Amino acid sequence: MPRNKGSQIIVADVGGTNARFALAEVSGTQFDQISLSHEVTYASANYPSLGDILAIYREHNQIDTGLVCMAVAGPVADGKAKFTNLDWQVNSQRIAEKFSLEHVSIINDFAAFAQATPYLPKHDMTRLVEASGMTGAPIAAIGAGTGFGVASLVHTHKGYQVSAAEGGHTILAAGDEFQWQVLQAAKEEVDYISVESLLSGTGLALLYRCVAKVTGQQLKRYQSADVSRLAISGQDSCCEQTLNLFCQWLGAVAGDIALIQGARGGVFIGGGVLPRFIDFVKASPFEQAFKAKGLMTEYMQNIPVDISHNTNAALLGSAIFLATNMNDDN
Amino acid sequence: MPRNKGSQIIVADVGGTNARFALAEVSGTQFDQISLSHEVTYASANYPSLGDILAIYREHNQIDTGLVCMAVAGPVADGKAKFTNLDWQVNSQRIAEKFSLEHVSIINDFAAFAQATPYLPKHDMTRLVEASGMTGAPIAAIGAGTGFGVASLVHTHKGYQVSAAEGGHTILAAGDEFQWQVLQAAKEEVDYISVESLLSGTGLALLYRCVAKVTGQQLKRYQSADVSRLAISGQDSCCEQTLNLFCQWLGAVAGDIALIQGARGGVFIGGGVLPRFIDFVKASPFEQAFKAKGLMTEYMQNIPVDISHNTNAALLGSAIFLATNMNDDN
Repeated sequence: MPRNKGSQIIVADVGGTNARFALAEVSGTQFDQISLSHEVTYASANYPSLGDILAIYREHNQIDTGLVCMAVAGPVADGKAKFTNLDWQVNSQRIAEKFSLEHVSIINDFAAFAQATPYLPKHDMTRLVEASGMTGAPIAAIGAGTGFGVASLVHTHKGYQVSAAEGGHTILAAGDEFQWQVLQAAKEEVDYISVESLLSGTGLALLYRCVAKVTGQQLKRYQSADVSRLAISGQDSCCEQTLNLFCQWLGAVAGDIALIQGARGGVFIGGGVLPRFIDFVKASPFEQAFKAKGLMTEYMQNIPVDISHNTNAALLGSAIFLATNMNDDN
Repeated sequence: MPRNKGSQIIVADVGGTNARFALAEVSGTQFDQISLSHEVTYASANYPSLGDILAIYREHNQIDTGLVCMAVAGPVADGKAKFTNLDWQVNSQRIAEKFSLEHVSIINDFAAFAQATPYLPKHDMTRLVEASGMTGAPIAAIGAGTGFGVASLVHTHKGYQVSAAEGGHTILAAGDEFQWQVLQAAKEEVDYISVESLLSGTGLALLYRCVAKVTGQQLKRYQSADVSRLAISGQDSCCEQTLNLFCQWLGAVAGDIALIQGARGGVFIGGGVLPRFIDFVKASPFEQAFKAKGLMTEYMQNIPVDISHNTNAALLGSAIFLATNMNDDN
């Protein structure tokens, strides 16, 4: 399996608010030793297009390489992407042509995170569910951030190949009467309750309101960050109950995703939400709910779950994606 | 992408009751012209092991090829499989050594079906949901038979690579109050209600009992086959309601699987159940439920759904699997 050793790749992690750029140096064959340098963050809305930021980044940092992979927040098809809150029309081929670049890839930011997961160093991980995992089997990547990301990785003879998915938009399944009542309360605010509606950074506040309503507790004007903070500190029992339910439900959903992707290689959880309360998740019914799958309980016993807190994962994954797919002709 | 043109491969579709063997002749590069010959079906329980049947098949049919791929009903790990109702310990490597065969692969039978789906001729398909699909995107394979099979296909530069999954064992999600009541009725009979518990050949009878109970209709001693037959003929309104719910729920589950696998290439439905009432499925709320995914409704609009009624799909898929993976060293 030859790799392009020592390649320099411009990578970016681009959202509606910020566009983070860096220069990745890929060496070794296992992608576990990628160095990032020249990190610059731009305010996305100040620029007419992503290509313009890229050109400025290359010029200001005197970077020669024409290999570029940019991860964007949103669905990507045929190298094209749109942003919900920006007037950008991103098109990888047009960017390559306009700025005379050797190769430009645009990938989904959560797919970029997923692409990095098998190669992230252990000190960037917290093991949530202990198990050996099956070498070479598919890996599921999920993430609770602003939304709920899902991607899958399958091992090919070239390395891990990532597929972006939209599993955050599946129907959120109630496993018991209390969860069902919470769903009914949520439906008073939102028509369609997906996984993302309640199990995400923004969803946590709605989940809190529903728990307060169903349990008849006094409703306070909490944001999601308040709910997790007051739950961890034990200052508010309704917040505690909410966060416990969040973890339990996330475990059940993570287990369902592992079953549907056949992810016997493991589940990696990214996104900014869980790293804020790792000890709380560990003490929660997450693991129990993850494994409670009837006849498949033994199957689930062998699937490890890790939380990633590497904030550069999407940048690293962009570099790995390009380095893997540059070798398509080999 | 070189293929082994004109290869002969022994293929088999092996269940607890029957083991079907055939000789596949693989020619062409797109796997759409595989011919099967020398088909023989053995009663599994009459033989001490799968290897013994294979040896008998080769001898009686005077087949020289040492290339073998056998699809078995059950999970496979490292070329090993067990049968729930047979005393067989299947081990691909041991079979190859004992009978001096060049190559033996053991794969899951539903994975074998999935492997065949992109190459099955159109006249073996019924299109259930019309859409263009995205070329080269992942494909989901699901199947309602005795159980509920799930597998995924991702396109690599070598062709489609299949991953077996266990998505039939996820929590069955209620989308409305009626479905929730049906789930509660089912839980009086079974502790954990998975997709397979109700949306399978065996599950249909339980679904009928639950619908009868929730709607207060008279319960009759129907088997699953009675329920579908009396629903199609319109002779029993409770059976009609049951089969309608079956189709609606299957649509919702198929949509969730497509979202979690990112299956923008399409969904293929196999198994013996749906081909028995294709017109009924078409007239049911399957498509509406498949697409009703909140923000992802547009995403779902582009995913086609096809029902396969090719009874040789697992045999063809076994041949395709081996022909694809024999080229691993290229």
